[in-house]
Amino acid sequence: MAEITTIAQQFVQFYYSTFDSDRSNLSSLYRPGSMLTWEGTPIQSAASIIEKLTSLPFSKVQHKVETLDAQPSSPTTPSIIVAVTGLLQVDDSPNPLQFSQTFHLIPDGGSYYVQNDIFRLNYGA
Amino acid sequence: MAEITTIAQQFVQFYYSTFDSDRSNLSSLYRPGSMLTWEGTPIQSAASIIEKLTSLPFSKVQHKVETLDAQPSSPTTPSIIVAVTGLLQVDDSPNPLQFSQTFHLIPDGGSYYVQNDIFRLNYGA
Repeated sequence: MAEITTIAQQFVQFYYSTFDSDRSNLSSLYRPGSMLTWEGTPIQSAASIIEKLTSLPFSKVQHKVETLDAQPSSPTTPSIIVAVTGLLQVDDSPNPLQFSQTFHLIPDGGSYYVQNDIFRLNYGA
Repeated sequence: MAEITTIAQQFVQFYYSTFDSDRSNLSSLYRPGSMLTWEGTPIQSAASIIEKLTSLPFSKVQHKVETLDAQPSSPTTPSIIVAVTGLLQVDDSPNPLQFSQTFHLIPDGGSYYVQNDIFRLNYGA
């Protein structure tokens, strides 16, 4: 479990720092079969995912991870499910938004790619 | 995707209605290799998971699902990742709590069991 958590932490750190600096650079993390569900909208393939992420209507964004949990997703293959909750701040809005995001990471050639990605903003009660 | 979403909806409806009526009845959904991470605490096996869930310090609980997203978790096996956000109300507290929960469902004999389960309460900014 310790190794799984370390891999998840490194992935999440890389993912959000890349998202917040230049999100077009996330394309190397996705594959043709990768899936993103963004606020309920399903999107498939690295190209379509990056097109969606880069067309989001804000220019500045900053993620702050509050919780990160990771588990091996299978007894037989070393893939990892990562669940994140946190806050994000867009442009000059003073109010951070809460989000939750789930990733499914698949090992490939010493690295990992994102097979599944589910993102939701969380609104209060 | 339509079938995946239907299975996820049926699972989630069953899961939370069982949780809210008698959570000891959830044991049939887990296996010896199932994992739960509850508010950061990792727990493994159906028996330990049910022991944790039934010892939670509230007697009445009600979940309200706000968002549900589902994706196939693999190109080769028909397993499903389900991400839920919602509100839950415990005992006689007037204030619902926000939560997010991720499930990884594995098919087995015409049904599904929970291989992975990650639960977090979400606190505001």
